Amino acid sequence: MRLSSFYLPTLKENPVEATIASHRFMLRAGMIRQEAAGIYAWLPLGLRVLRKIEKIVREEQERAGAVELLMPTIQPADLWSESGRFDAYGPEMLRIQDRGGRDMLYGPTNEEMITDIVRANVKSYKQLPKMLYHIQWKFRDEVRPRFGVMRGREFLMKDTYSFDASPEDARKSYLKMFAAYLRTFRRMGLETIPVKADPGPIGGDLTHEFVVLAENGESDIYLHRGLIGKDIPGSDFDFQGNLEPIFSDWTSLYAATDEMHDEAAWGEVPDEDKLSLRGIEVGHIFYFGTKYSEPMRARVQTAEGKEVPMEMGSYGIGVSRLLGALIEAHHDEDGPKWPASVAPFHIGLVNLKVADEETSKVCAELEASLEAAGIEVLYEDTTDRAGEKFARMDLCGLPFQIVVGPRGLKEGELELKIRKTGEKTSIPVDNAATHIIKLVQEELQLLAIA
Amino acid sequence: MRLSSFYLPTLKENPVEATIASHRFMLRAGMIRQEAAGIYAWLPLGLRVLRKIEKIVREEQERAGAVELLMPTIQPADLWSESGRFDAYGPEMLRIQDRGGRDMLYGPTNEEMITDIVRANVKSYKQLPKMLYHIQWKFRDEVRPRFGVMRGREFLMKDTYSFDASPEDARKSYLKMFAAYLRTFRRMGLETIPVKADPGPIGGDLTHEFVVLAENGESDIYLHRGLIGKDIPGSDFDFQGNLEPIFSDWTSLYAATDEMHDEAAWGEVPDEDKLSLRGIEVGHIFYFGTKYSEPMRARVQTAEGKEVPMEMGSYGIGVSRLLGALIEAHHDEDGPKWPASVAPFHIGLVNLKVADEETSKVCAELEASLEAAGIEVLYEDTTDRAGEKFARMDLCGLPFQIVVGPRGLKEGELELKIRKTGEKTSIPVDNAATHIIKLVQEELQLLAIA
Repeated sequence: MRLSSFYLPTLKENPVEATIASHRFMLRAGMIRQEAAGIYAWLPLGLRVLRKIEKIVREEQERAGAVELLMPTIQPADLWSESGRFDAYGPEMLRIQDRGGRDMLYGPTNEEMITDIVRANVKSYKQLPKMLYHIQWKFRDEVRPRFGVMRGREFLMKDTYSFDASPEDARKSYLKMFAAYLRTFRRMGLETIPVKADPGPIGGDLTHEFVVLAENGESDIYLHRGLIGKDIPGSDFDFQGNLEPIFSDWTSLYAATDEMHDEAAWGEVPDEDKLSLRGIEVGHIFYFGTKYSEPMRARVQTAEGKEVPMEMGSYGIGVSRLLGALIEAHHDEDGPKWPASVAPFHIGLVNLKVADEETSKVCAELEASLEAAGIEVLYEDTTDRAGEKFARMDLCGLPFQIVVGPRGLKEGELELKIRKTGEKTSIPVDNAATHIIKLVQEELQLLAIA
Repeated sequence: MRLSSFYLPTLKENPVEATIASHRFMLRAGMIRQEAAGIYAWLPLGLRVLRKIEKIVREEQERAGAVELLMPTIQPADLWSESGRFDAYGPEMLRIQDRGGRDMLYGPTNEEMITDIVRANVKSYKQLPKMLYHIQWKFRDEVRPRFGVMRGREFLMKDTYSFDASPEDARKSYLKMFAAYLRTFRRMGLETIPVKADPGPIGGDLTHEFVVLAENGESDIYLHRGLIGKDIPGSDFDFQGNLEPIFSDWTSLYAATDEMHDEAAWGEVPDEDKLSLRGIEVGHIFYFGTKYSEPMRARVQTAEGKEVPMEMGSYGIGVSRLLGALIEAHHDEDGPKWPASVAPFHIGLVNLKVADEETSKVCAELEASLEAAGIEVLYEDTTDRAGEKFARMDLCGLPFQIVVGPRGLKEGELELKIRKTGEKTSIPVDNAATHIIKLVQEELQLLAIA
């Protein structure tokens, strides 16, 4: 993609309304634009990251056996009356009347609708288990939207719903999502810890939040050092097999947000293993049994011929919020430092002198070779000053930058900068493409968590 | 994908509310489920087709030089007051008040918002031309939603907006979209004709509807036979080159819907070239000049230093509606007949006797070989009766069916059925995979319009 054909409205000044790094950089790098409080347009650079996050989420959902559908954004109120939530849900629910005066709402979540969909068709335990998910825009009318996409009103979420004939099977579904989430976030280059969440009146140990470790995170988390960098399931992991070992491996060491912090249990963690860090919630998985299937009469026949309400769980990932979390976890003062798997482009190719024929020729050839190998290139082909180009590239946060100018070319060299470390090296023009393709592929391979 | 793991709630009976084939089959094949009048959940089979249509639309937009962004579904009313449309738009607009009492709306279209986005950043002719598009859910509160996804309330649309510094440049942008649309629909296996649309008070010849020819189409169209099967731009077509020839090639022959039908001009078409057919509108492209940029003060400096409002056009494709149009154009009494490029799966693999070890072994091997070659397989691995399996496969409308049973295997054979023609042939098991992979790839290649 040539920058001259792209649409990248960067800002030089820090927007006053942005108090945290991710919000600031997303506005400044032209990734998003605010259209109303907590409502954003996703500009091309931001949308590319959003789509890559979606893709990873989707791949890991499918690997775990979940099947994708798509529920609409607008829901009829009737369903919510069945569960009792239409009146119970607070002013965060955006309530709407259509032209016929019917009560509708912009879905803040989808338990009711998915239960309705499944009860219409699933009548026997033989049709179970089922895990269905969708990735859809939701709306929660927050009283004080803030921190950009971290707490927006219109936001993109992945939610999965599991349906089983017994609590034992529901536990298996829960563990599948638990394992899938470990892979999902790690593939984005995030260090994420599952921590116990508050099960509320339902009780039990089957509810976890997945928290990204980030210096400026919103909540305090307390964890055992052994959870950092812990192995996660590989790509050949058998989701049909016994998932108890991986679950207990991850949950037997202490991890809690301040809300669930237990001083007694914390006291038993050896001092040298105690870590107290900040975190951002990016996922939440929850086994809630028959909370919706009971009032909504979503029932199946068991093998014994008994009719029972289905056992359900729900599993959310804040897809748009993840952009914020990623930047909070990976940035410096100049901008984000995107992990290659979610970077809007893999490489920024900076032409220092567009008017110079040789420089532009080398750039165009390099662009073509890289793109032919599946590498995504943002080619900086504008006539702006070098300083502007460098600042903009750092602000975009692409993992690698290649700088090509007439002076270097005289020596047969161009410059490669690794955004993550800031490291710069000269490399020969001759085999530059091969060298860079290998670099990018290695980085992507690392994040594929084979 | 194994049917036992998929979610495919097919219906045996014809739903009474469905009066046209596409609506009927989409409900019966478990592609969609109505959640409220004109509001549908996209079940897994339907969603797969929707995503394939989206992908083709996206690829052709990018090829023509359009850049993707994503505007939110909920918009503030202010912008629409600037253009004067907040009051002018009828009850089709879903108006909403948020918890703070602010007027909002669910976007029925995005001219105002995109104009606002572009005016914030584009100040000079040097930054133009720009073509920006998004694929997003829209809402129009139709008084009588009907025909399933053909006239729904919540629907998925691709809309592109072009911004230019002069009417001459705007014409170039228009022609790019014109050419892109020819490729887009043909790649889906649709015979589509651009017909003159009503330019309204703006006048000129730069507005066309793209109409799919389908027996049960909603409107009458009159066209010159020469337009049928006419060549379209190949994949090496130069969108930066002179587009006038392709435009005049397609627009010099008579084509009009009944609204724009001109008896005098029609009289000049030789009788043997006159075709009167039915059609379904799936796209609309429109040059509207400064209709929005003028009141919204979206201006640029020209090369001569003059400040002028930008020249704009908008270009829509009814993405979710296309599923209906595709079925109307391609079906028989048993179900849809999907073109391979948009089929939910390429192949239905029917195991006639799951309990038979050899049959299941052959099926599993075939499934693995096909999937390894990138062929999408829906493996019918249920214990249902053969008759049910066949009917369901026809209802799903996958381009190819492979039927494997113990009797055929004894002869070393399996059966291949081509859904489009109904043709059945026996093929040897031994090189079945190779044979089928070739068949599917040829079909896909044909639709890639190289």
